[in-house]
Amino acid sequence: MFEPRYVSDLLQKAVDAFSRLPGIGPKSALRIALYLLKQGEEEAENLAQSIAELRRKVVYCSECRMISDSPVCPVCSNPKRDRGTICVVENVRDVMSIERTGRYTGLYHVLGGIISPVDGIGPADLAIEPLMERIGRGEAGEVILALSTTMEGETTCFYLYKKINPSGLKITTIARGVGFGDQLEYTDELTLGRSIENRQPFKPE
Amino acid sequence: MFEPRYVSDLLQKAVDAFSRLPGIGPKSALRIALYLLKQGEEEAENLAQSIAELRRKVVYCSECRMISDSPVCPVCSNPKRDRGTICVVENVRDVMSIERTGRYTGLYHVLGGIISPVDGIGPADLAIEPLMERIGRGEAGEVILALSTTMEGETTCFYLYKKINPSGLKITTIARGVGFGDQLEYTDELTLGRSIENRQPFKPE
Repeated sequence: MFEPRYVSDLLQKAVDAFSRLPGIGPKSALRIALYLLKQGEEEAENLAQSIAELRRKVVYCSECRMISDSPVCPVCSNPKRDRGTICVVENVRDVMSIERTGRYTGLYHVLGGIISPVDGIGPADLAIEPLMERIGRGEAGEVILALSTTMEGETTCFYLYKKINPSGLKITTIARGVGFGDQLEYTDELTLGRSIENRQPFKPE
Repeated sequence: MFEPRYVSDLLQKAVDAFSRLPGIGPKSALRIALYLLKQGEEEAENLAQSIAELRRKVVYCSECRMISDSPVCPVCSNPKRDRGTICVVENVRDVMSIERTGRYTGLYHVLGGIISPVDGIGPADLAIEPLMERIGRGEAGEVILALSTTMEGETTCFYLYKKINPSGLKITTIARGVGFGDQLEYTDELTLGRSIENRQPFKPE
């Protein structure tokens, strides 16, 4: 194993800190630390400052729980977004993925996880009450459940459906089906079956 | 591509800074930034501080050019090390590798690179003058050239040999040969040829 300790306690401290990050092992951590030592001082200062500011200043949007530099995120505060639709997602990354498609103009709601008894995550651990509160304000006409098609995702969808349904809102879920570029013969039966059941009128684009 | 910019300028800044590190692409950088946002504040502060201190406080040993927390590194200031032997290496990492073997008790000299006309690195870019100055002090009796077996490594060895030889010091190079665990049939001819020429008395351990 790597023992840069006898060389420099400060190097060791930096290597330890980098090693704790996801996807970075001790070898990569050492490589990064030695790289920073070789660069000009502003490179390291810039990285250090970015990290400190990221954690100190980034907040969660009081409306949708998305990360944001301001109390209300750019999506929620954008008057051009359709305030009648709320797309419920598991995490921040899902919002980024949907935004990248450029096909969605409504608002979001980040749950911060999904119901997973195995991991000890129940409804109370997720931002479900804030969602119900938003719905209670009566601005939304439709809630899109955009969760993973895993067992946990389906469980969470069902739980949310039960909670939201009494309010009479339209509840939808993202289309499941064969992905673009996928070959039918390699698509699993469940997906292929659903995509046939939910077949749609052919629209030449 | 990833565009977290519309989400948070601070997130984007951190992702950009992480992406500049070796071995970290934009996807990993985003993953690391989101990970830091999820952790307690001390995690990010600790990382930021380690990075800033690393660059600000780590120095190069005035003797051997190894990185160090003090003006003279722990190896050079250790009275138990054999001051009569200087092992010349390309970089800081090589010192760590040799130290890990636990088989060397002498001092080091870090060149900070090797002669490489292709990359525009000549003798003047390396810590060769400081090496000659150390040799000039007369404490050393042997210089070990522990450089890579590449063309650049061989060129640098030859250059150093020409410089040091007039001083009458013993000049050695690390043994080239078949590595432990290597199979003869997969060893290249040059290595195998040298290892036969430089055969040594068999010593049962």
